Amino acid sequence: MTDLARYTVSMDARLLDRFDELIGRKGYANRSEAIRDLIRGALVEERWAADNAKVAATVTLVYGHHAHGVQEHLGHIQHHHHAEVVSSTHVHLDNDNCLEVIIIRGRSRTVRTLAEELIATKGVKHGKAVFTTEGNELY
Amino acid sequence: MTDLARYTVSMDARLLDRFDELIGRKGYANRSEAIRDLIRGALVEERWAADNAKVAATVTLVYGHHAHGVQEHLGHIQHHHHAEVVSSTHVHLDNDNCLEVIIIRGRSRTVRTLAEELIATKGVKHGKAVFTTEGNELY
Amino acid sequence: MTDLARYTVSMDARLLDRFDELIGRKGYANRSEAIRDLIRGALVEERWAADNAKVAATVTLVYGHHAHGVQEHLGHIQHHHHAEVVSSTHVHLDNDNCLEVIIIRGRSRTVRTLAEELIATKGVKHGKAVFTTEGNELY
Amino acid sequence: MTDLARYTVSMDARLLDRFDELIGRKGYANRSEAIRDLIRGALVEERWAADNAKVAATVTLVYGHHAHGVQEHLGHIQHHHHAEVVSSTHVHLDNDNCLEVIIIRGRSRTVRTLAEELIATKGVKHGKAVFTTEGNELY
Repeated sequence: MTDLARYTVSMDARLLDRFDELIGRKGYANRSEAIRDLIRGALVEERWAADNAKVAATVTLVYGHHAHGVQEHLGHIQHHHHAEVVSSTHVHLDNDNCLEVIIIRGRSRTVRTLAEELIATKGVKHGKAVFTTEGNELY
Repeated sequence: MTDLARYTVSMDARLLDRFDELIGRKGYANRSEAIRDLIRGALVEERWAADNAKVAATVTLVYGHHAHGVQEHLGHIQHHHHAEVVSSTHVHLDNDNCLEVIIIRGRSRTVRTLAEELIATKGVKHGKAVFTTEGNELY
Repeated sequence: MTDLARYTVSMDARLLDRFDELIGRKGYANRSEAIRDLIRGALVEERWAADNAKVAATVTLVYGHHAHGVQEHLGHIQHHHHAEVVSSTHVHLDNDNCLEVIIIRGRSRTVRTLAEELIATKGVKHGKAVFTTEGNELY
Repeated sequence: MTDLARYTVSMDARLLDRFDELIGRKGYANRSEAIRDLIRGALVEERWAADNAKVAATVTLVYGHHAHGVQEHLGHIQHHHHAEVVSSTHVHLDNDNCLEVIIIRGRSRTVRTLAEELIATKGVKHGKAVFTTEGNELY
């Protein structure tokens, strides 16, 4: 059972019109949901700036299957961090290219370093991390 | 068989020292790999600014399991876009919270809209997309 | 005379607590102002993704005063685009280093290209643009 | 007198072609300059993640001239931080709208807080900071 808070927001009617157009294009059901998303995004951003919070992250990697030893090396890093790596999903994009998403949990500093190590692996063409939350501090 | 190009880069020796320290901290094997990564990142960024390139993306979502109908709704959207959605991985973070990563391929405009729709779903606490590449235009 | 719109936002009471803490740390006077800022930020971002909107931008450049010809070259570019460049402010950081901020107005495509040209100038150590708005479409 | 370092970078010839096209579009004179810029950008980013480095920043604000007291309030904040605020440039965008750029120097934590306070001021329609460097640690 959660308490629902309600409060009134005021703004120039023309700004509200623009906002309504924007959330229409983005597919939001209503204003409250869009505003909650903006708020949660700001909170997650601040949390990751903090020193050593408990967090989750996903790392997306694209690499050439034929690149010498890249897959083995990525596997090696993940095993070495088995305490943090939750799962890994692999997609065969074409004959040569793979996309892999690795889900990680842990302390922000460890998670960030691990994400950077995966992205820095020789043979990875493009790597990018999403720093998100374990969810339990967001509502 | 690929052609390897070699060329000489010149810079202030002190800038090179700083760079060597940075790539050490980030875990790169050597300078060439770190520079290739910076270059590929700039290329992917430019590609996504283009109108309708073929791309890949991953969408990371954190949501409360108990939130009314959110999982069903996310499943519904994905089925509706079965041509673009490649796979979806689900992690149970705790009693309440789930993390889901959805891998998408398609034209940039479609992929972006689909990512926004997933993120905008009521009940999603935090959503973020990585816009990446199908890999075949990067080396 | 502007119309003020008021509407009710609902969210989990705990999310509201977190938000109130955040806006306290960031120095906002009240929730409405913080929410308006989040909304305006999302609108400006979308506007710059549009093709050729009327916009404003500022370009911040740090460069070494003694670097061969950089100041002349930056001046040359600005004169060449006198129709877009509004003003330029110069700060002497130390014996060697200058910081310059250039204010630009025009169509998004032109403004972006001009910003990139300034940043790409040989001798510029760090350059970054803020893409903002002429203000008249925000409230 | 500075030492110039030269070293060889190797990459797939096709990646180099893409890079040459990109730097052509961005207006770089040569590859070394483009690579130096990518490197310096990564260094500045890391520096701002550090705790309390000496830095410079610029804050770009757009606000309505007629908004009640905003200009006075912004002036008040700047006077209060006269030790950090270096200069401020004001542009009249139209009858109503102003753009102001404030140049700030100091410790990263102080500069960030001051930037946030300026951006959070009621009446500011859009505010954004560029976190840059004092230049003396970049080459």
